[in-house]
Amino acid sequence: MAKFVDLNSDVGESFGNYKLGLDEEVLKHVTSVNIACGWHAGDPLIMERTVKMAVENGLGIGAHPGYPDLMGFGRRNMDITPKEAKAYMLYQLGALYAFAQAAGTKLQHVKLHGAFYNTTSVKPELAEEIINGILEFDKNLILLALSGSYIAKRALEKGVKVAQEVFADRAYNPDGTLVSRKLPGAVIHDKNEAIERVKKMVLTGKVTAIDGTEISIAADSICVHGDNPEAVNFVNTIRKSLEDEGVVLKPFSEFIG
Amino acid sequence: MAKFVDLNSDVGESFGNYKLGLDEEVLKHVTSVNIACGWHAGDPLIMERTVKMAVENGLGIGAHPGYPDLMGFGRRNMDITPKEAKAYMLYQLGALYAFAQAAGTKLQHVKLHGAFYNTTSVKPELAEEIINGILEFDKNLILLALSGSYIAKRALEKGVKVAQEVFADRAYNPDGTLVSRKLPGAVIHDKNEAIERVKKMVLTGKVTAIDGTEISIAADSICVHGDNPEAVNFVNTIRKSLEDEGVVLKPFSEFIG
Amino acid sequence: MAKFVDLNSDVGESFGNYKLGLDEEVLKHVTSVNIACGWHAGDPLIMERTVKMAVENGLGIGAHPGYPDLMGFGRRNMDITPKEAKAYMLYQLGALYAFAQAAGTKLQHVKLHGAFYNTTSVKPELAEEIINGILEFDKNLILLALSGSYIAKRALEKGVKVAQEVFADRAYNPDGTLVSRKLPGAVIHDKNEAIERVKKMVLTGKVTAIDGTEISIAADSICVHGDNPEAVNFVNTIRKSLEDEGVVLKPFSEFIG
Amino acid sequence: MAKFVDLNSDVGESFGNYKLGLDEEVLKHVTSVNIACGWHAGDPLIMERTVKMAVENGLGIGAHPGYPDLMGFGRRNMDITPKEAKAYMLYQLGALYAFAQAAGTKLQHVKLHGAFYNTTSVKPELAEEIINGILEFDKNLILLALSGSYIAKRALEKGVKVAQEVFADRAYNPDGTLVSRKLPGAVIHDKNEAIERVKKMVLTGKVTAIDGTEISIAADSICVHGDNPEAVNFVNTIRKSLEDEGVVLKPFSEFIG
Repeated sequence: MAKFVDLNSDVGESFGNYKLGLDEEVLKHVTSVNIACGWHAGDPLIMERTVKMAVENGLGIGAHPGYPDLMGFGRRNMDITPKEAKAYMLYQLGALYAFAQAAGTKLQHVKLHGAFYNTTSVKPELAEEIINGILEFDKNLILLALSGSYIAKRALEKGVKVAQEVFADRAYNPDGTLVSRKLPGAVIHDKNEAIERVKKMVLTGKVTAIDGTEISIAADSICVHGDNPEAVNFVNTIRKSLEDEGVVLKPFSEFIG
Repeated sequence: MAKFVDLNSDVGESFGNYKLGLDEEVLKHVTSVNIACGWHAGDPLIMERTVKMAVENGLGIGAHPGYPDLMGFGRRNMDITPKEAKAYMLYQLGALYAFAQAAGTKLQHVKLHGAFYNTTSVKPELAEEIINGILEFDKNLILLALSGSYIAKRALEKGVKVAQEVFADRAYNPDGTLVSRKLPGAVIHDKNEAIERVKKMVLTGKVTAIDGTEISIAADSICVHGDNPEAVNFVNTIRKSLEDEGVVLKPFSEFIG
Repeated sequence: MAKFVDLNSDVGESFGNYKLGLDEEVLKHVTSVNIACGWHAGDPLIMERTVKMAVENGLGIGAHPGYPDLMGFGRRNMDITPKEAKAYMLYQLGALYAFAQAAGTKLQHVKLHGAFYNTTSVKPELAEEIINGILEFDKNLILLALSGSYIAKRALEKGVKVAQEVFADRAYNPDGTLVSRKLPGAVIHDKNEAIERVKKMVLTGKVTAIDGTEISIAADSICVHGDNPEAVNFVNTIRKSLEDEGVVLKPFSEFIG
Repeated sequence: MAKFVDLNSDVGESFGNYKLGLDEEVLKHVTSVNIACGWHAGDPLIMERTVKMAVENGLGIGAHPGYPDLMGFGRRNMDITPKEAKAYMLYQLGALYAFAQAAGTKLQHVKLHGAFYNTTSVKPELAEEIINGILEFDKNLILLALSGSYIAKRALEKGVKVAQEVFADRAYNPDGTLVSRKLPGAVIHDKNEAIERVKKMVLTGKVTAIDGTEISIAADSICVHGDNPEAVNFVNTIRKSLEDEGVVLKPFSEFIG
């Protein structure tokens, strides 16, 4: 039986006169995209264009809501309330929905961005309202969340479909959380090692944690980057390595239960 | 046969810690609301709350997109392109759609705000893209537009439903356009006169232009204000004056063809 | 020998079309003002007008820099770096400086706003860069800071003049810090009690902490509010109560060493 | 007697995570810089860093205030009032002043950006308030303005020092204004031709207008660009071509009367 996996990338992160990321290139290699919604990055013209490019490439389209912090690219934690978290997500989700609707397509998923993603992965009260927001907006929208995270588990309990996201270049703690970037060994710099880890996660559902223990990990989608030509090449390499193992790459909405 | 008319008001114009408008009061008297979408006014929490209040009052809900100019409250003209006009409208329309969707309701209409409204009423290239945006987003969404304006006519030609908006307190030119606020006599300050004008527009489809000529005017919806207690009282007076004449007030989606 | 004290209030917090605070009233009763600098509140027109009003009233003028969070009024913590803290303060300080300069006056002080104030009071690495920024900008600028706080002490060590700020309506912990607003008894609601506490702080340099112990507290300036008519009246009452005790109220630059 | 001229470039136009322009490179070739002030581009960290780099390179430092329109990079006209124009300029001027002050240096000049520059060059009521703002802020601050423009003439009349700016790659109308970019021939694409024009403007004070007539033009500073490696090379070529003619390049504050 075939194994399936999705490759997702953050795109549409340009803003006005500012260009960021090789979207045209990375869109050829991934199967799903997370499109910035104008708060931490992106603007309406870029959202419209990015949605159209994603449609042309047959990709799963997701909203990528962030904190209201363009200057900090949504990477700085902000002490927002659960109600704010829900309303901020809905606002941005709806904004992207409009461009999907205008392009004749639907949203596949939502993935929170940066500090919004990190905080919501672990804070129950924020996670709860994010999940409520998804249920109120569209029961069929998939939440793309950190594999095994609190929000991923809680969303499943509450009836939201979840795509479990893994990272090719990040080390894992024995409990399945990511090793903090502030600690040594947090990032896997060796590309071959990264590819071996990806294959193992996808094919066996296991990963070696930073302390050497083998842990289980669900891998519906692999987060990849398109910041520069080297990163784009690496995405292509991951894709081919997986296809060589017989893994079929497609948007996760096509294989998630 | 009964005459119908709608009363619309701009609401949801508070922002963060800043409160503007007596929304709770004016919502009791109008039949449709135009809800600010976070660019010239409004924020996600306020949008969510305002949509819920509108649902509770049984009102027609509309998006009220404005220019990206919170400091100028969307009242200063900005030299945006037709593509920007469309994308800016879609972004804000979608954002409000999300809160309507979460509240279990649908959007009745879109009305552009301030300088965006004024410019788009008369500039064909902007009007064209606004209309295209509406058609791409939702063919059943009604455009609330200045009665008899270029955009109103063009929208009808292109198959968009239009609610023709009139103003109780504004003088009209012989060609049906509003007398510029910079000219004397532009604003009708006498409340009794304003009410007589409203009744005449609704009951006979006529209004006396500033030069004394009688002109035809379609009046599907009357724009009213809720800035202060006096304004809210005036809305109530308009409502009662119309009801005394047998006019039925309801959201325009219930009587527009 | 006469006792001196200053009354300070946050003003200039309107924004564009949004009005906040009874600035015209409260300016008559205080001796120093903290003027919002356009990030958490305020805009250039309001800054210009507020500086002029402060000059007309003979007040000490201070910049009131906040986080880049208009939607949250600068009250939500943001995880900014020390370098950002310094640069954000300098930017806003300079912006207000321009209006002071244009009005022919000088800045007396800087007081951080909201979450920026709270965080910087206690985080050494943020405090350090704020102090460095003041020293680089103007060695004679006074820092208005929470009485006895880390930043107040450290600023004095580094040669920055400090005005020690106390609160009429807040309870103190035995270590001189404010009782968190989340705890019972944090806010003194009884106005007579508040006035007695203010008089004691100013006249004796002592305050009764929430556990009943007497602690020392330096009181160069008392923070008061002008949000509503009742608040403004209370400012006037504080002023008169202090004057009745022979205390002279004037901007702290006139009596700080 | 030696001829002097200045080369100026817009720098500090990055924002947060977004990088724009080869500032490190272009700073080596120009003599003055116009530093974005956070409205159309730039942020406090970038302003601080850019000021320091300018100091290290011994350049004349200018504020480059723009419209409050980051999404449009300040290039879209906004219908602001003269009072707003003045206050917006002062705000940004002060913000940059703070970083100059912190770096132990002074501002040489102010140059308005984009649509703010264009509109203010020709609208007397806006020009008047800009000039008033400069006079109120610092009588010795130089206005870098379009050579021969209304604002340049009026500023001189009112006692503000003016550096007359010319463009290497733009065609001129017989009245000395720039040919609109919407018209054919507006931009000089041939680099050799551009250099010949620059030399002629600097050495003879003349330029050939688009209709072939010879017109007089004052050239205190030449506007150059650092967007890409080719542009930076062109700046270097301009510099060398002028030096080969015996022209001395230095900040205009060193030779303007």
